[in-house]
Amino acid sequence: MFNVQCKEPLVVIKVGGKIVEEDATLQCLLDDFAAIPGYKVLVHGGGRSATKMAAKLGIETQMVGGRRITDAAMLQVVTMVYGGLINKNIVAGLQARGINALGLTGADLNVLLSDKRPVKEIDYGFVGDVKQANIEHLSSLIRQGIVPVMAPLTHDGKGHLLNTNADTIAGETAKAFSHHFDVTLVYCFEKPGVLLDENDDASVIPSIDKAKYRQLVDSGIINSGMIPKMDNAFGALDAGVSRVYITSSTAIDGQGGTLIIL
Amino acid sequence: MFNVQCKEPLVVIKVGGKIVEEDATLQCLLDDFAAIPGYKVLVHGGGRSATKMAAKLGIETQMVGGRRITDAAMLQVVTMVYGGLINKNIVAGLQARGINALGLTGADLNVLLSDKRPVKEIDYGFVGDVKQANIEHLSSLIRQGIVPVMAPLTHDGKGHLLNTNADTIAGETAKAFSHHFDVTLVYCFEKPGVLLDENDDASVIPSIDKAKYRQLVDSGIINSGMIPKMDNAFGALDAGVSRVYITSSTAIDGQGGTLIIL
Repeated sequence: MFNVQCKEPLVVIKVGGKIVEEDATLQCLLDDFAAIPGYKVLVHGGGRSATKMAAKLGIETQMVGGRRITDAAMLQVVTMVYGGLINKNIVAGLQARGINALGLTGADLNVLLSDKRPVKEIDYGFVGDVKQANIEHLSSLIRQGIVPVMAPLTHDGKGHLLNTNADTIAGETAKAFSHHFDVTLVYCFEKPGVLLDENDDASVIPSIDKAKYRQLVDSGIINSGMIPKMDNAFGALDAGVSRVYITSSTAIDGQGGTLIIL
Repeated sequence: MFNVQCKEPLVVIKVGGKIVEEDATLQCLLDDFAAIPGYKVLVHGGGRSATKMAAKLGIETQMVGGRRITDAAMLQVVTMVYGGLINKNIVAGLQARGINALGLTGADLNVLLSDKRPVKEIDYGFVGDVKQANIEHLSSLIRQGIVPVMAPLTHDGKGHLLNTNADTIAGETAKAFSHHFDVTLVYCFEKPGVLLDENDDASVIPSIDKAKYRQLVDSGIINSGMIPKMDNAFGALDAGVSRVYITSSTAIDGQGGTLIIL
């Protein structure tokens, strides 16, 4: 227990596509993120921009169960949009706020190594399932004041980039960082938190532990859309992350959202 | 002098667009680059790919004196193509060869801070002239075995990315690294070196110092196309770089090319 108490705090914040894809909301996010004290990591999505860019290039976007089918042409698009356009604009925006940011994909510093998802009923194409996180260099950079900004791309170690869900990137890096830091993981989405009544944004459940989670699922209050997020959250907690918040993109420090604990 | 002798060697290699833009030549380059022993940095271009991508998006490319006019739409294209597509494919390709690469723009780690080029006769748009290099974090990473891969983009410290000539990126980072390392700078281009007869690729001049350079310019052997490259080379040497090679993209260690010394 002594070791755990000695770890310095680190916040890993995952923001979805929409907030980073429009300049006005992006600037607000960067202001909010810059104001968070201490060690921090930003993980971003960018699906809407990828879909728009693909359309401009005459490439059709195919989604199955909310997941993007990533053929060779779509991989080029997401590499450009996630790894280039969105990631580098965030980095430049943070630099302007005095934050020494470093933009990365999972290929950079070999941070996230993936297996290409095996073809079963569906061929997702160049999509990666993370199998290994290497965060030693990043941890050292963070301790020197660097703020990593991670794009939702990994690599297979054989020269291929792989499109990878941003929630997964956040979860896997948070787990790996939990060996070095006392990690808070914040998942931002369009709602202010886990809601008791999905039609009432004021009905945020302040905190959920495993017992309460079972209760909420059994009573039908937490339904199919939220279950993968909650499972991700408990997976991270089981693997050493100290706490997880599910919150809105306008409250990225987690305050006012739902705190998930074991 | 003792300090100079103590510095460890570092090679900064700049490769032009063409070699990194076709998969076959890129794989050869990555094999060659991976085989170079010791500390190294790769700087890449990507102009041809940017022009092609711009065309696909219906954006017209305007060049003045070999320099790209970079309006807001073109800045998006070069950010995607240089910072995303080309940079991240190189990084993934190097990782596959056991090289722990880190792809960067000048905004990442605040490595290269630029001023937007002032508008005189021509408005180049979002084009940067480097004013400051911050390579402390990179130097430390290099000593830990990391290989930086730099895209031709910088930032202005106010949140804007700026398109920046790859030769300049290579020269400015090489100069900055020369405070920490014994730096060899290699400029690769389509010819095997500085030629005595521009129509004879076998007529490579093995080495040129300042006295010989004056002689070659006076006699008309070095002409307008090569003069900016030579001036860049001598500028780097004057600022502390130990040696510069001008060579072909298939001889990136400089051997067989032209060695430029003070």
